[in-house]
Amino acid sequence: MVAEILNQLLAIPSPTFQEQAKVAYIKQFLLENCMPSTLIEHEDNLIFQKEIDKQLPTIALIGHSDVVPSHKLPFEKDGKLYGAGASDMQAGLACFLSVLSTLQEQLAYNILLIVYAREEGTPLEKNGLASLIKAYPELMRSIDCAIVGEPTDNTIQLGCLGSCHASVTITGKEAHSARPWNGENALYKALPIIQTLRDYTSKAVTINTLEFKEVISITECQVSPGRTSVPAECSFNINYRFGPDKTSEQAFAHIKEVVASSGVRDVNCELTDSVYAGKIIESNFVDQIIKKINKPIQAKQAWTDVAQLAENGIPCFNFGPGLQSQAHKEDEYADLMLCENYIESLQNILKKGD
Amino acid sequence: MVAEILNQLLAIPSPTFQEQAKVAYIKQFLLENCMPSTLIEHEDNLIFQKEIDKQLPTIALIGHSDVVPSHKLPFEKDGKLYGAGASDMQAGLACFLSVLSTLQEQLAYNILLIVYAREEGTPLEKNGLASLIKAYPELMRSIDCAIVGEPTDNTIQLGCLGSCHASVTITGKEAHSARPWNGENALYKALPIIQTLRDYTSKAVTINTLEFKEVISITECQVSPGRTSVPAECSFNINYRFGPDKTSEQAFAHIKEVVASSGVRDVNCELTDSVYAGKIIESNFVDQIIKKINKPIQAKQAWTDVAQLAENGIPCFNFGPGLQSQAHKEDEYADLMLCENYIESLQNILKKGD
Repeated sequence: MVAEILNQLLAIPSPTFQEQAKVAYIKQFLLENCMPSTLIEHEDNLIFQKEIDKQLPTIALIGHSDVVPSHKLPFEKDGKLYGAGASDMQAGLACFLSVLSTLQEQLAYNILLIVYAREEGTPLEKNGLASLIKAYPELMRSIDCAIVGEPTDNTIQLGCLGSCHASVTITGKEAHSARPWNGENALYKALPIIQTLRDYTSKAVTINTLEFKEVISITECQVSPGRTSVPAECSFNINYRFGPDKTSEQAFAHIKEVVASSGVRDVNCELTDSVYAGKIIESNFVDQIIKKINKPIQAKQAWTDVAQLAENGIPCFNFGPGLQSQAHKEDEYADLMLCENYIESLQNILKKGD
Repeated sequence: MVAEILNQLLAIPSPTFQEQAKVAYIKQFLLENCMPSTLIEHEDNLIFQKEIDKQLPTIALIGHSDVVPSHKLPFEKDGKLYGAGASDMQAGLACFLSVLSTLQEQLAYNILLIVYAREEGTPLEKNGLASLIKAYPELMRSIDCAIVGEPTDNTIQLGCLGSCHASVTITGKEAHSARPWNGENALYKALPIIQTLRDYTSKAVTINTLEFKEVISITECQVSPGRTSVPAECSFNINYRFGPDKTSEQAFAHIKEVVASSGVRDVNCELTDSVYAGKIIESNFVDQIIKKINKPIQAKQAWTDVAQLAENGIPCFNFGPGLQSQAHKEDEYADLMLCENYIESLQNILKKGD
């Protein structure tokens, strides 16, 4: 059954900013099969609410509706379902829908299903979940445990790294490329910075026995003004992925420190943008749920929207059936066995005991 | 008087590909003041011909009509005339017009004045002089000495360097920037190439006692795919300025050799384009003219259209009143003293003896 739902989802294109048709399908599915107490539509985001008993804890199942690869007709082959966003994270959404339509009256907790738009490559101010947190603060605060269905290969991934981007510009002196002795090649001048970053060893940050690896890379490089000139300027984008024990300010300060340690002169280092890391919020209820799922527990070595949830005091973790290695691939697929297995895990935690 | 002509020229905009109004003005000036034997218009180029005696040698005065900086109203201050292209090379053209209108019946040689369009930053197939060489091969071959009025601060500059551009691409392996150990940063991998080029010492090529300096620079650098990835690819533009003793093929082979000497693997080196160097053609007549001008003689440490002329067997040199340091500057000016001095030199060689 989950294969059928996933197939339906994958048949509807939902590139970022064009999630409307997919959201409409999900809304229809929820109304027809899952008996919501309330169904909120806000911008292109949905909040499905199923209240069992106000005294019981609330579990939120959270996923984004947009996908990265270009749309193609889904097809199944050898237990894999191919389609744009199959692993990231249409499989997670399909499993959520499957479980909610199956359990109906057997739910052990109050449930929120949050399907939000504009997660892929957008800044926080465009992100659908950020918009919901702002619009429905009390409802969001009522969540006792949020499960974000991003691809984790059915492992539990806690917290997440922050990501700081800085623009580093090295100024040399322009000259005609036929007379380079009149100038100072900014790329050559920047060499010690490249070397310093190449030789940077990743640092482990251990939180609750989970190890995050802090890493830093030059990810972009431009020189100007052009092909017949000794470059007067060399600019790098430096991306630092930092642990949940650091703020964005500390992260940017660290980038500046590393760049300064290269000893290069005439360097300007500016913060481009930074998103905070995902803290791990202590919660007995979440600990119980995680114990019940009984899967390997890891640190999330990337940024996901659990950072936003944690920042707003909502206990949460990443747990999804998608394959991390398939995310954003042009011929992306989801493994249907992992989906079945994931549904079992969800039913195990969400189903009322006999 | 030359100040007046130069002022008129600078008052008319002539960015590359929009030289028509300036060419029309020059044509009118030549018809009214210089009594041509023939005046050829071809595309946006002019050939003014003044035949004195078929037995006498022919001297060509050659200049391009287009300018680099954006147009502004010309003005004079402290003996300098400011305006777009003042030094490169409206001053040269103004001096040519001044001398031709003054000497009239006193010319000692047959004269060609060639004013051509589309010199600045265009490939050879757009270059107005290339077009004239193709359209009027016999007329061009009749030239015994061509004086190209590019800015040389009134020195004589012989030959010119060739210029070869190669695109060098280093392939690494893409990875998410949060997990760089899954990839190979192409910029880091390219480090030894940057070092090798930084440490390259320029080589002197001496031709007829003139020293050309061969130099090589990285002038452009791009890495891809983007800011949250370990770059899978790093591309450089390498610009090699080579001496008149080398062909474009030899120049490209040298770039490949230098890159290979860095020892970096997974490198692809492709020729982007190359223009041949300007050979120095032996000619007793040119030697006489140069002796008569009696100015410092240098090697041309850049590329100019003398390369085209030499390639077609036309003896030539660069000699112009513009200041090299002013070329392409937004507030470009020409020094009127240098113009007066240049006119004296031209009159000295072009005027019939008493």
